[in-house]
Amino acid sequence: MDFEITAKDVLGRICRLDTPHGRIETPAVLPVINPNIPFIPPKKMRDFGAQALITNAYIIYRTSRREVMAKGVHGLLEVDLPIMTDSGSYQLMLYGDVDVSNREILEFQRKIGSDFIIPLDIPTPPDADFETAKKDLEITIGREREAKELKGESLLVLPIQGSTHAELRRESALRAKEIGGDVYAIGAVVPLMDAYRFSDLARIILEVRSVLRVEPIHLFGCGHPMVFALAVALGCDLFDSAAYALYAKDDRYLTVYGTKKLSELQYFPCSCPNCSKMEPEEVRELEKGEREIFLAEHNLYVTFSEIRTIKNAIKENSLFELVEKRIRAHPNLLSAWRQIKDYLPLLESSDPRIKKKFLYCGIETLYRPAVRRHLESLKEVEFEKEKLVISTDFGIPADVYLRPAFGPVPVELLECYPSGHAEIPEAEFVEKEALEMAVENLREFMVSLKGKKFVVHVSGRWKEFVKDLPEDCEYVLH
Amino acid sequence: MDFEITAKDVLGRICRLDTPHGRIETPAVLPVINPNIPFIPPKKMRDFGAQALITNAYIIYRTSRREVMAKGVHGLLEVDLPIMTDSGSYQLMLYGDVDVSNREILEFQRKIGSDFIIPLDIPTPPDADFETAKKDLEITIGREREAKELKGESLLVLPIQGSTHAELRRESALRAKEIGGDVYAIGAVVPLMDAYRFSDLARIILEVRSVLRVEPIHLFGCGHPMVFALAVALGCDLFDSAAYALYAKDDRYLTVYGTKKLSELQYFPCSCPNCSKMEPEEVRELEKGEREIFLAEHNLYVTFSEIRTIKNAIKENSLFELVEKRIRAHPNLLSAWRQIKDYLPLLESSDPRIKKKFLYCGIETLYRPAVRRHLESLKEVEFEKEKLVISTDFGIPADVYLRPAFGPVPVELLECYPSGHAEIPEAEFVEKEALEMAVENLREFMVSLKGKKFVVHVSGRWKEFVKDLPEDCEYVLH
Repeated sequence: MDFEITAKDVLGRICRLDTPHGRIETPAVLPVINPNIPFIPPKKMRDFGAQALITNAYIIYRTSRREVMAKGVHGLLEVDLPIMTDSGSYQLMLYGDVDVSNREILEFQRKIGSDFIIPLDIPTPPDADFETAKKDLEITIGREREAKELKGESLLVLPIQGSTHAELRRESALRAKEIGGDVYAIGAVVPLMDAYRFSDLARIILEVRSVLRVEPIHLFGCGHPMVFALAVALGCDLFDSAAYALYAKDDRYLTVYGTKKLSELQYFPCSCPNCSKMEPEEVRELEKGEREIFLAEHNLYVTFSEIRTIKNAIKENSLFELVEKRIRAHPNLLSAWRQIKDYLPLLESSDPRIKKKFLYCGIETLYRPAVRRHLESLKEVEFEKEKLVISTDFGIPADVYLRPAFGPVPVELLECYPSGHAEIPEAEFVEKEALEMAVENLREFMVSLKGKKFVVHVSGRWKEFVKDLPEDCEYVLH
Repeated sequence: MDFEITAKDVLGRICRLDTPHGRIETPAVLPVINPNIPFIPPKKMRDFGAQALITNAYIIYRTSRREVMAKGVHGLLEVDLPIMTDSGSYQLMLYGDVDVSNREILEFQRKIGSDFIIPLDIPTPPDADFETAKKDLEITIGREREAKELKGESLLVLPIQGSTHAELRRESALRAKEIGGDVYAIGAVVPLMDAYRFSDLARIILEVRSVLRVEPIHLFGCGHPMVFALAVALGCDLFDSAAYALYAKDDRYLTVYGTKKLSELQYFPCSCPNCSKMEPEEVRELEKGEREIFLAEHNLYVTFSEIRTIKNAIKENSLFELVEKRIRAHPNLLSAWRQIKDYLPLLESSDPRIKKKFLYCGIETLYRPAVRRHLESLKEVEFEKEKLVISTDFGIPADVYLRPAFGPVPVELLECYPSGHAEIPEAEFVEKEALEMAVENLREFMVSLKGKKFVVHVSGRWKEFVKDLPEDCEYVLH
């Protein structure tokens, strides 16, 4: 088996992926190497944390065919890391046409020893009409079938297309899965990211992930560390980054919270080796070439440290907490993430049942499976008493305490996950939704215990929210 | 003038502070140097970003008096950075007594050439009863008066005490200000930070800042980067960090989102030079001394990169956005920060009126002065029409659009700060509070325009919220 999940959190995971040139541990970012403009030497990429690279077979085919046929793609780039080769599909998107057939470019990729080969899929742009997207998709699927026959020893990457049509993305994923690839790559999403249309991006990932529950998913063209945590938490495993170089050439600086212009930076908001030793003013004074390398290196440091941060969060099961911070980079990321409320069964199917901590960050915290599972665990508690004392205040002896988000927490569950491990702001400082959900859960809980009587002690801000509870309920206000 | 504010944001600022050993730019962190255990050489501190150091005059007094009288404190530490000297007040807190008088330790600090001297204040712990705190405070103030006479060429740091009593903290600040110091240092808050009592910490800072609107404020014993952004945004300028070393000795690793144990880290969530070149597993295998230095260096890198991040945020007026991310490190930080709703006039007195961006992060965003100021700017718009069209949907031609948080935005303000620069999640994904505030602001706006008629187009989720508007209002639901 060349793909194995070793750790899981949210819809994300850490996996081992074996390639002809060795093992990759995902989530991983593949820096894009332009074969003709060796900006940062490919072999240096390992020092930043790269485990694999991606380069463009179509450019090599057009410019260095003879050389690469002799040396192979690893010889050409002088590196022994696993290499993925793109097919020219990107050029197809940019220029509308390429000068090679699917079969030619696939055979070429195989012959030059690419570890991951990609057919010449049709990158239908966002907002294409359904018919166009469907027609393009049929061509893509035909080419994927051809790729399956031609793959040889290489791993096969099957692109997922379908524009912004959820139904087509699902169909694309399903039919690719039937063909059977080694990696599935969500394509043609760069225009969405460029326009900060993160909601559309997230929905596409979620739709694909609904179909591909286990298989490795690559997010084509996503190289901005601002998006990695969200994308991994929604189920992506692989990324590629031209951003590190493109942004550097444009004097831009990547951070996990967005892009900064070098011209506007007064201090480097980063601890990387470059940013710890120079100041923005000094870097602005470097000549263009040196400045580009400085920025590209910074961009790589921040890219790979974000990947490590995400992996560590998966290992300690704090990926929800990490994402809920990262999405504060831009309100469109907040909206994007909050769509998970439409995918709760999918989330529950993957997210671990027990974690060490539960830290509340905002209303999106309410969608975590732990909150729903708490409600289920309530059903297992039995109460002998006829009259239950419920309190919003831990200072009052009670059988059940009311907590924001979770709602009723019987004394016997107080130390259990999640409630016993949960840190939530006090009622005075928490979002209304967290209090309303708590009261709604309390109401359901009381209904499920029909026949019992209840005394409910309500203090502080809870008074605005605790009302309209079932009958047989006596309120004591504090 | 030896203190000058050069940039402001929220209640934070960037300042120049001149000392006998040169200029410091605040916000700044002073690493604590233990004079007897040279862990990381003081002169190396500059490489990490330190502009000044702090050491303990009492320990030097007891262990190296002769040497330091000959060499001065800069000679003893072999460094020419500005040095602050603590008086033994910390030892007073730990052991209940010290073996030196206020006058002795002050004269000693002056003689050894300390740049910042501190009297032997009484560090009353949190939750002390009012009488004790008040009595301690009187002693502290007496000692501060004595210090004022003895300060010589040194800068004078006046501690602010008063335990968790807001009233006493204000009194302490006021009376210290009357005495006149160069820096004011909020003391005895370490137990609050150790217990994650960030609400109490924030309230103390806000109370002190209400009195000391301009003067530089040091937060004694605060060396965890998790707290810096919040503390700066509430008005602190200086910090000292023993944490970098203490945590390292305990195999703990600082991050801006909390502390990690080295034993639990699988990947380093950091881009610093140390974390970019080794993995946790390798560091765990180092011998104790090397491991401590590795961790202490990492802790310093992250400490100073966080200070740069904060300074850059002040310069670009995005400190609100930074804090609203950082407080997601722990729900107690969320609660702590959300107390600013009780200090809005103070916030408005300091926060710049115009910024480049307004990014919504959560309900705490609603407390930003920009939202209140938008309401004021509404009063300046004049409408000639008798009937105004208001819409929640930008697709419908209208005179006024309704936006979450801000509420009514007349067409002529659509491009102006803040609304024109604001990114806010769509109504479907934003917190209820943001919609309720918008509708409340709309209601006020309509009342202020009495005599006019209104047509209000309401779409999507807004329908739950747009209701009970003044008369002369026709609703159109979409």
